[in-house]
Amino acid sequence: MIDLFATPDAAARCPDLTATASIVSPRDAKALSETVTPQGLVAVCAVRTTSLREVLAGRPRLLTVLVEPNDPGNLGTILRTSDAAGADAVVMCGGVDPFNGKAVRASAGSVFHLPLVECTLDELLDGARATGLTVLAAAGGAAADLDDLADDGTLAAPTAWLFGTEAHGLPADTVAAADRAVRVPLHGRAESLNLAAAAAVCLYASARSQRRTASGGAAARGD
Amino acid sequence: MIDLFATPDAAARCPDLTATASIVSPRDAKALSETVTPQGLVAVCAVRTTSLREVLAGRPRLLTVLVEPNDPGNLGTILRTSDAAGADAVVMCGGVDPFNGKAVRASAGSVFHLPLVECTLDELLDGARATGLTVLAAAGGAAADLDDLADDGTLAAPTAWLFGTEAHGLPADTVAAADRAVRVPLHGRAESLNLAAAAAVCLYASARSQRRTASGGAAARGD
Repeated sequence: MIDLFATPDAAARCPDLTATASIVSPRDAKALSETVTPQGLVAVCAVRTTSLREVLAGRPRLLTVLVEPNDPGNLGTILRTSDAAGADAVVMCGGVDPFNGKAVRASAGSVFHLPLVECTLDELLDGARATGLTVLAAAGGAAADLDDLADDGTLAAPTAWLFGTEAHGLPADTVAAADRAVRVPLHGRAESLNLAAAAAVCLYASARSQRRTASGGAAARGD
Repeated sequence: MIDLFATPDAAARCPDLTATASIVSPRDAKALSETVTPQGLVAVCAVRTTSLREVLAGRPRLLTVLVEPNDPGNLGTILRTSDAAGADAVVMCGGVDPFNGKAVRASAGSVFHLPLVECTLDELLDGARATGLTVLAAAGGAAADLDDLADDGTLAAPTAWLFGTEAHGLPADTVAAADRAVRVPLHGRAESLNLAAAAAVCLYASARSQRRTASGGAAARGD
């Protein structure tokens, strides 16, 4: 963090956080922030991304890959969910800036927890293959569903999950370039899931499969 | 649907949908809708809710219960996810109107697919117990996690899932009134999940457990 500004109210509310803050008027805090009703705390932080090489050198087990994300709110929510699900990094192949204010807010801090990588899709695919990651493309029309892949053990392998956009999903050639295309099953009459909801279901399915396998798993323990 | 209005552009784009529409100017369509960039199609629909008694008489296996929901976007997304996960109905105990324009848009049509019930929490709890539903409260601080409940078979039972608000979760007395409190595991450094993401993970975990059990299940089949 480079600088911190707080209104008198915010400083009184969070004295521990704001010991080193510059006190500013509510009007100045509003001018500094992007929201209609700012919380009275504004921090200036250094933007930090990591290289793909560095992330892959850490032998990741779970990567979230966002292909041309175009909705900062969904992007931030997926960052937060990736962090919660224990992903090792989030890779952005094009799309909106992950440090967009709306994305940062929706990430609820996770934009600062998780290594973020910016690279091309080809670089990601080459690197993932060289590292032995299974590349799964989330695609509504896919033949295989998530439950099948949990059952057959696919999800227990180190995985890079590719997600597209809310309106259009992943481009067909990107789906074709993945090892498997996977759909979240739709049991009711909804035609699709919200992108961030679909990502949550996919990432948590991987986390469960990987961690059950790593710990022996309930099935293997016979309970 | 009671009435349908379309701009000339929207009518040209969706001729099948708009055969019976009244054609209006873009300016009038904008005045009729709530969005900054309307899609040029506005429908007037009858609002329909179902009684709790009617829903419970259908022997539901999966209910989403929203306790005092306060964010229409999250509410609509959870409606959509509930539909996708095969929930039998969504029950609202207080909170914002599910027919709020933002909730309707976020639900992507699911507000019209799923039976919606409005009742008090006490009515829901009494009805759920009388029908043999397990009442699970999604609560960040709970001792049991979702993977434990998938492993021990709890999630395979007919279930009513209680969800609170993004900022405050469920009130403590509501958590205490449920059969079990359950947390979504946080494997990384995120302190919590977005409410709609947490609901997606919980509802899909139930859907998987219920459907695997109903069909014999991969474990029971020995594969």
